[in-house]
Amino acid sequence: MGEFDLIRRYFQRPAGDGVEVGVGDDCAVLAPTPGARWLVSSDMLVEGRHFLSTVDPARLGHKALAVNLSDLAACGATPRGFTLALALPRVDEAWLAGFSRGLLALADAHGCPLVGGDTTQGPLNLCITVFGEAPAGQALLRGGARAGDEVWVSGTLGDARLALEVFRGTAALAGDGFEAVRAAMERPAPRVALGQALRGIATSAIDVSDGLLGDLGHILAASRVGARIDADALPRSAVLAAQPLALQRQCGLAGGDDYELVFTAPPGARLPDVGVALTRIGTLEAEPGLRVVDARGAALEHGLRSFDHFRA
Amino acid sequence: MGEFDLIRRYFQRPAGDGVEVGVGDDCAVLAPTPGARWLVSSDMLVEGRHFLSTVDPARLGHKALAVNLSDLAACGATPRGFTLALALPRVDEAWLAGFSRGLLALADAHGCPLVGGDTTQGPLNLCITVFGEAPAGQALLRGGARAGDEVWVSGTLGDARLALEVFRGTAALAGDGFEAVRAAMERPAPRVALGQALRGIATSAIDVSDGLLGDLGHILAASRVGARIDADALPRSAVLAAQPLALQRQCGLAGGDDYELVFTAPPGARLPDVGVALTRIGTLEAEPGLRVVDARGAALEHGLRSFDHFRA
Repeated sequence: MGEFDLIRRYFQRPAGDGVEVGVGDDCAVLAPTPGARWLVSSDMLVEGRHFLSTVDPARLGHKALAVNLSDLAACGATPRGFTLALALPRVDEAWLAGFSRGLLALADAHGCPLVGGDTTQGPLNLCITVFGEAPAGQALLRGGARAGDEVWVSGTLGDARLALEVFRGTAALAGDGFEAVRAAMERPAPRVALGQALRGIATSAIDVSDGLLGDLGHILAASRVGARIDADALPRSAVLAAQPLALQRQCGLAGGDDYELVFTAPPGARLPDVGVALTRIGTLEAEPGLRVVDARGAALEHGLRSFDHFRA
Repeated sequence: MGEFDLIRRYFQRPAGDGVEVGVGDDCAVLAPTPGARWLVSSDMLVEGRHFLSTVDPARLGHKALAVNLSDLAACGATPRGFTLALALPRVDEAWLAGFSRGLLALADAHGCPLVGGDTTQGPLNLCITVFGEAPAGQALLRGGARAGDEVWVSGTLGDARLALEVFRGTAALAGDGFEAVRAAMERPAPRVALGQALRGIATSAIDVSDGLLGDLGHILAASRVGARIDADALPRSAVLAAQPLALQRQCGLAGGDDYELVFTAPPGARLPDVGVALTRIGTLEAEPGLRVVDARGAALEHGLRSFDHFRA
């Protein structure tokens, strides 16, 4: 099967709403909503670094798009479409069928059509660029937080990292518990509806991809504020809560790959209910720096670093 | 040097016109021109397949963006910005300095700022997604050509392929001649101004990336027409014209990597003068298929295939 057959068979769909030209010309052509701003994000996934070679291809397709939709969610954008560039060692039709099924199911669920891309031969590499929209001036950015704002996080944190530790052999888990944290790692749910609902409410937001402390650190740096975080307030699954406390804190504070939103809002802000749990985990302070305390207010020496692709 | 230092040092620039948020948040935020359509294209470049490991990093930076701008050019779009996702085996500052210099010089020349992206560790892989604009209904597409239209090509064809043949050892060339064709391969000039000038004039367009016959074939398929092409009319450089005729035809008709525009226009259309040579190479016909003839009208058995990443 050649490159163009491959694209037609697995990735070409009829152009949808707002897509005037989709897969199959030199460019896709989209119609922006009048007055909206255009939001763009790009992520590259490499085998062995972002996913294991053993991952189910449908889950990989899901995750490749999910991590990009999560960036749109963090900015409060409405998804409009995405491109996929794919380097494959060889044409493996079973793999392509699974990958495209997982990818396009999530795309359909978010009304975010695949509009173009590229395929080539090479070491397995997935690059997705996603486009969304938000009304002018309403995108959620990292730099709008103020001292006194509360710090909130969606869903639970740490399960994806716990799954990774099981794969690494440094934690033990089996049966349903393992399947649950593995699903958290492999099938994250991007908080797209929550991000849109936070427009005009949150003062800043970011998605938790490299670990809570590191990602929150980007908000603190951009907003020039500090924070006090209660490690014991972090929302965690029953599976993670059954692990040793040190592992819970490692996974929750610095785990990464969560794709939950951490955001800030003034005290008393009316937070949206979109069916996702929201937990208050701390407060922003004028004093720079990130202070992690336990439930009694005692300082924790965390020393936890967030993930860095050239340091980890 | 960590991931974020790397981005700041080599890739972060102040946000420019129409870029409300550039590198450094979860998404870039751009302001579309009212009424314009948004055009998107994505290309992935892999070492050993799209470029040689010996390529000068500044030229690679240039080419990585040039091939994407060429897709915008083929659609008649005005560049607005791009994202870069980069997998690197290791942090090599000399390489990054050269690469970003070549990349950003071309970006500046076309007013097309780098607005975001991703960096990770992995086998060398470059993925650029480029965004542009065109007035509603004016994007140049593959499907608008009609029987009777003339077929035109910009610049010259075949030099990049000739350079590749020299690298492969199947053609011999030295000195200035080699440097000229090597520059054609490594520093293609995307025909952005020409593409925009062809809006409302050309009935279809595509850029020559996989080889003239293959790329023209996409126009014929999308427009449901055939074509008669005069192989001897193909514009070629003095360096290529000094090669054996069979090699000239191979390089010109099926070379690829040219990044010239091939477009169709009705006879008598007033073609724009943007300082790029335009050569008429044939005519569209109602009869399906692609007929290649010589200057005397005799049919050539070309049997030339265009480049396919999973067949070549």
